[in-house]
Amino acid sequence: MRDRLKSLIDSPAWERAIIAIILLNALILGLETDPGIMARFGWVLQGLDRIILAIFVVEILVRLYVHGLKFFRDPWSLFDFAVVAIALLPATGPLQVLRALRILRVMRLISVVPSLRRVIGGLIAALPGMASIIVLLALVFYVFAVMATNLFGASFPDWFGSIGASVYTLFQVMTLESWSMGIVRPVMEVYPQAWLFFVPFIVSTTYAVLNLFIGVIVSAMQQDAESAAETSREELRNGNEAVLEELRALRAEIAALRRERER
Amino acid sequence: MRDRLKSLIDSPAWERAIIAIILLNALILGLETDPGIMARFGWVLQGLDRIILAIFVVEILVRLYVHGLKFFRDPWSLFDFAVVAIALLPATGPLQVLRALRILRVMRLISVVPSLRRVIGGLIAALPGMASIIVLLALVFYVFAVMATNLFGASFPDWFGSIGASVYTLFQVMTLESWSMGIVRPVMEVYPQAWLFFVPFIVSTTYAVLNLFIGVIVSAMQQDAESAAETSREELRNGNEAVLEELRALRAEIAALRRERER
Amino acid sequence: MRDRLKSLIDSPAWERAIIAIILLNALILGLETDPGIMARFGWVLQGLDRIILAIFVVEILVRLYVHGLKFFRDPWSLFDFAVVAIALLPATGPLQVLRALRILRVMRLISVVPSLRRVIGGLIAALPGMASIIVLLALVFYVFAVMATNLFGASFPDWFGSIGASVYTLFQVMTLESWSMGIVRPVMEVYPQAWLFFVPFIVSTTYAVLNLFIGVIVSAMQQDAESAAETSREELRNGNEAVLEELRALRAEIAALRRERER
Amino acid sequence: MRDRLKSLIDSPAWERAIIAIILLNALILGLETDPGIMARFGWVLQGLDRIILAIFVVEILVRLYVHGLKFFRDPWSLFDFAVVAIALLPATGPLQVLRALRILRVMRLISVVPSLRRVIGGLIAALPGMASIIVLLALVFYVFAVMATNLFGASFPDWFGSIGASVYTLFQVMTLESWSMGIVRPVMEVYPQAWLFFVPFIVSTTYAVLNLFIGVIVSAMQQDAESAAETSREELRNGNEAVLEELRALRAEIAALRRERER
Repeated sequence: MRDRLKSLIDSPAWERAIIAIILLNALILGLETDPGIMARFGWVLQGLDRIILAIFVVEILVRLYVHGLKFFRDPWSLFDFAVVAIALLPATGPLQVLRALRILRVMRLISVVPSLRRVIGGLIAALPGMASIIVLLALVFYVFAVMATNLFGASFPDWFGSIGASVYTLFQVMTLESWSMGIVRPVMEVYPQAWLFFVPFIVSTTYAVLNLFIGVIVSAMQQDAESAAETSREELRNGNEAVLEELRALRAEIAALRRERER
Repeated sequence: MRDRLKSLIDSPAWERAIIAIILLNALILGLETDPGIMARFGWVLQGLDRIILAIFVVEILVRLYVHGLKFFRDPWSLFDFAVVAIALLPATGPLQVLRALRILRVMRLISVVPSLRRVIGGLIAALPGMASIIVLLALVFYVFAVMATNLFGASFPDWFGSIGASVYTLFQVMTLESWSMGIVRPVMEVYPQAWLFFVPFIVSTTYAVLNLFIGVIVSAMQQDAESAAETSREELRNGNEAVLEELRALRAEIAALRRERER
Repeated sequence: MRDRLKSLIDSPAWERAIIAIILLNALILGLETDPGIMARFGWVLQGLDRIILAIFVVEILVRLYVHGLKFFRDPWSLFDFAVVAIALLPATGPLQVLRALRILRVMRLISVVPSLRRVIGGLIAALPGMASIIVLLALVFYVFAVMATNLFGASFPDWFGSIGASVYTLFQVMTLESWSMGIVRPVMEVYPQAWLFFVPFIVSTTYAVLNLFIGVIVSAMQQDAESAAETSREELRNGNEAVLEELRALRAEIAALRRERER
Repeated sequence: MRDRLKSLIDSPAWERAIIAIILLNALILGLETDPGIMARFGWVLQGLDRIILAIFVVEILVRLYVHGLKFFRDPWSLFDFAVVAIALLPATGPLQVLRALRILRVMRLISVVPSLRRVIGGLIAALPGMASIIVLLALVFYVFAVMATNLFGASFPDWFGSIGASVYTLFQVMTLESWSMGIVRPVMEVYPQAWLFFVPFIVSTTYAVLNLFIGVIVSAMQQDAESAAETSREELRNGNEAVLEELRALRAEIAALRRERER
């Protein structure tokens, strides 16, 4: 029974069916945002949505039955489990926001389509190499946020009233959005030296972010170049080995000639 | 007859003539935007424009006659056909916008000048390698647009009133244009937690777009490096082959020596 | 006489003196922007400025005397000549703007300091490889500017009233500055489909500009990789040659052995 | 005594303790920005802050005692010394801003954690290779700032009233923030030709900055490629050496054979 179910959920037909259902679900959830369509076909769309949710729940249960506790070791399975679980929570009162998160179910497309899974895997695999620069950026953000809160918080509570507000404003400044006309020029009306704070922040963080991405490019290319060079060296070694073997055979031949002579 | 026409339209003189006519047409269509010039020389410019259009129609007909149905298999021919066809449609009533599209005829320069054709070909050739990331970006945009419509649509109908409006606003946010002062700060006045939606969106989409372009760089360079390494390996193999041949000759010589001795 | 002058203007001491005078001139022209300083020391600064200008004129005359007409063949000499000539034109009436261009004299630092000259040379040398993409960008700008003037010129004369205004506005849109909140959203109030014009424009031009710079990176690296691979291949060839020579010597030895035997 | 202290401050336990204290200090200085927390626990936080400062002072004194004057030769030690010294200066009157700089103490994390130290070292090491472009950018900024002050200073004193104001505004323009809607369009209302000043400035400085970063990428990759090629060549040489040795042995053998024959 378990083996038959396993071969079923691993079959390409099943994969295609799940992809079709996810795309249908995406379409339904998209149509549900239109009040006109909801007024006329709302009951159909919501009915279909519930049927699809039931299919997803059954699919997760089948995979839980087939894989047992190993199910919870695969991060993609946990992802599927989470986005389906969100839809089952009661979306009332303070949790009403969860209704809007139902669309996250469409993200299951990533866990189902192998090429998308590989892209996300690649994006995540590039993160550990960036760990030092990410820690550094976090440190710079924290230090500048505390400083900004102390320096400008009293005069500009909306932008620098708390550490959270300062971090958000500094993130905006780092993306260069309205940093001067919107933030720094008004601040400079009160604190004329404020550019001494913001210009170094902009230069250092944009330089750090650029180095972050440059680091990823360089490391990705290094691997390619490294493997290409390895292939070349491999071939070099094989070629050399062939020559040396030939030479050893020749030497043996000459040694034989000499031995014959001495006899 | 067909062969003579074929050698005519393939000749460099013909190509130069077409380029000259396209550039003249570009100049005329540019001058037509100036009301002062139109008031005085409008009839000349429009007359010339009609003559040039006639030349283009004749040129397309000649190519249709020469190449037959193969004409429609070349994407550049289809492009030429489309931009000329646009000028022949009646530009009245709801189609008045087509008058403005006449300038697209100047784009024929791309299909006529080989180096421009190669650049466009290169830009398009780079797209399939990006397919996974493009699908992923489309998915992220759709999911976030549906979510934004559900969450913020009621309070901000101009920005998030429908999926189309949300996609446009999210595209604006991705380009970092006024994302904070223009969009997210007003939204946060109503929904203070809105940054939880927008900051991850900005970080993930800009990271994805950067990886998109980085991917193109890496793959372009990989090909160059690969072909250079292939040249090196080729030479390596040839060199080795020469050494081995020499060694084999030597061995034959020694074997001969040995045979002579044994005689 | 000419030879002595030539060895003088080629000497490092002369170069250092010119650099010092340029830097002093930069300082003077900077101080002249301050009204307070001008009120008190204006006559000193303007006197020094005139003396320095005289030195520059003499230097150019000396170089003209030494190099003769060859002077006009070196682009850097022409550059020096132009920035000094600007200062000699009468800066009155409509030419008053030339007074502000006197500071361009400080740009002579580039033509005097070799490392700066090399950087500028490198930046310019990278341009021809970009010719196709630059032509393409110019074409896209022209076509979209004519189209924008026809489509939006009547309603938004400030932004799209003429081809020049449209090119400027499209350049602003390409740099992503206020493209949506400042330009496209107001335009969409009148022409709701305007995003069909601007979004493709943004995507295609930013992609083209990125490919422009990526192309420069790739070609710069290709050259480096090519020369490194050439060095490797050179060494490979030399190594192989040494082995083959050794083998030929061996073969000659064996041939001699065989001849001796036959005797 | 000195040796025992030296082995103590070099021990991993000490390093971990200092990291823990820095992180605790970061938390305390963060909490101190919240007025509500300060009202209730202010005396605890300030007491802890003073204790931590005392620990840092003692640590610096110990390192001064252990390393002697060599302490002042290590830039990281000077950095540690400076951020602790800032906290000891009286933060009253005009120096009140120093209170906000206490958070810089958290930056000591960089000098303590080796991987962060390496990242900062790498970022700084990349700067000398950029020296020419940085000088060039500074020159362009100075020349354009003097010109802008002369041309637009009278009409727009807030933006171009002095060289300092002009440099700041040009920096804003270079980051593309509100350059057109905020700065250049208002300027063009007074000086219609102002785009002749700003568009070349934008194109040249963004191109220069991109070349700056591209230069860093290229040089970083060149080093990697160079070292990889060096490894390949090394192996090539070793392989060749082995073949040549074998050949020499063979030749000696044949020479021996010949000598024996002649005997």
